[in-house]
Amino acid sequence: MSASKKQVVRWRTGAKPQRARDELAVEEPLEIRVDTRPVSVTMRTPGNDDELAAGFLFTEALVKQRADIAKIRPSARNQNKNVIDVFLSPDVTVDLERLKRSVFVSSSCGLCGKASIEMVHQHFKAVRSQRAKITGELLLTLPSKMRAAQQTFERTGGLHAAALFTTEGELIVIREDIGRHNAVDKVIGFGLLNDLLPFDQHVLVVSGRASFEILQKAIAGRVSIVCAVSAPSSLAVEFARESGITLVGFMREDRLNVYSGEKRINFTRE
Amino acid sequence: MSASKKQVVRWRTGAKPQRARDELAVEEPLEIRVDTRPVSVTMRTPGNDDELAAGFLFTEALVKQRADIAKIRPSARNQNKNVIDVFLSPDVTVDLERLKRSVFVSSSCGLCGKASIEMVHQHFKAVRSQRAKITGELLLTLPSKMRAAQQTFERTGGLHAAALFTTEGELIVIREDIGRHNAVDKVIGFGLLNDLLPFDQHVLVVSGRASFEILQKAIAGRVSIVCAVSAPSSLAVEFARESGITLVGFMREDRLNVYSGEKRINFTRE
Repeated sequence: MSASKKQVVRWRTGAKPQRARDELAVEEPLEIRVDTRPVSVTMRTPGNDDELAAGFLFTEALVKQRADIAKIRPSARNQNKNVIDVFLSPDVTVDLERLKRSVFVSSSCGLCGKASIEMVHQHFKAVRSQRAKITGELLLTLPSKMRAAQQTFERTGGLHAAALFTTEGELIVIREDIGRHNAVDKVIGFGLLNDLLPFDQHVLVVSGRASFEILQKAIAGRVSIVCAVSAPSSLAVEFARESGITLVGFMREDRLNVYSGEKRINFTRE
Repeated sequence: MSASKKQVVRWRTGAKPQRARDELAVEEPLEIRVDTRPVSVTMRTPGNDDELAAGFLFTEALVKQRADIAKIRPSARNQNKNVIDVFLSPDVTVDLERLKRSVFVSSSCGLCGKASIEMVHQHFKAVRSQRAKITGELLLTLPSKMRAAQQTFERTGGLHAAALFTTEGELIVIREDIGRHNAVDKVIGFGLLNDLLPFDQHVLVVSGRASFEILQKAIAGRVSIVCAVSAPSSLAVEFARESGITLVGFMREDRLNVYSGEKRINFTRE
């Protein structure tokens, strides 16, 4: 359930306030457990929780491949479906302490954006594949295709989206969530669970802005082209450049900005 | 430094791509240490880091009052100014394990939005004060006042803002950050460090959406009216209702929605 109805008082200048019902994006906690040990609680919009759990563990480098996961299912002990169990394959162990450690590991050598980038590169090498090529014109069509496929945004105005397209502009998957990073985790988790990775011939489009965290998750899925409808951050650009990722931002109907990896984009007029 | 210039390729349909320089919102990690122990790393936009650290510790209920903090200063060992030291007063101890525990504490009794709300209420009681009153007309002027005061957004398109106003519409403080929650932490931290709390006769305006986390931070500062330019989440509304907070959303030039605590707003035409 990604939207819920609430009473609201609507008011417009010069008119009387009116009671109405408004659809809002649902936000609920999700606890992810690995072999019954809790590893994370995140606020998310319910739906595709298995993808969110798989994507989170994969983009955080806790699991390395599809085969590491034996089973994912809602915890039987939680009726609200806000606890999800991930069971690993018998021969797999994960370093759960890493989640906590990675937060502090770089502080001795001087914490900075560069150290943050290097930390990610310890697990995920730069994307070297140049197979993905796309025209500027086709890129510009993707945000409206994504918006058309967003089921809940129109009703609530409150959900971020992440969508994966082929370089021919075909929509592979779209996921919505109150958290921008969760929407990307769901897309990458979808790829992992369905054995579709790497996404190195694909384009990931995110509503809103592109932060470091979004790029960090994209590289785990080997995404070579990331497009943000709105602004990227300085560190997202630096990360994209050092990671071989094409980063596009400020996509409007007739224009866009390329911050990194422009070689994958064909601007030639035909 | 909240904006940085990067090379960009600008392209518009039918034209040749052009190289230009673009201003981007800066994103860099900040490690917060308490008595030299690292407690958190967050991606933030540099600036007002002392307020961010104080606000974070206060809204997470690790410190209870201004007097608990003896000194805040950038760590001498980090040249990038991305590590900040908070030194507590001699007789104060904080339960740093709480940060980790609070994440998992509710899971035994059934993790859900209600449990999340109760967890916050253990530290921050509902806001009972009804002293704050404001007219609908005045509320509608606040988002544009906030936008006018945003220094970096116009140049980068990449920063969230949080601004605190009196119920007469006077701007007290505005802070920008790549992270919505950081902008609110900075505002609350500003209040704490300058002995201006409680903010129970004030209005907090946030750009974008209102999530649970924003309301959780607002209640720590005893803010009684929270306005989001865009949509609130379901859990933000539930939290506001159970916390005595007036929550306004979808603020446009001539209209707004009230999700909770409408009694503080005067809609009477004069």
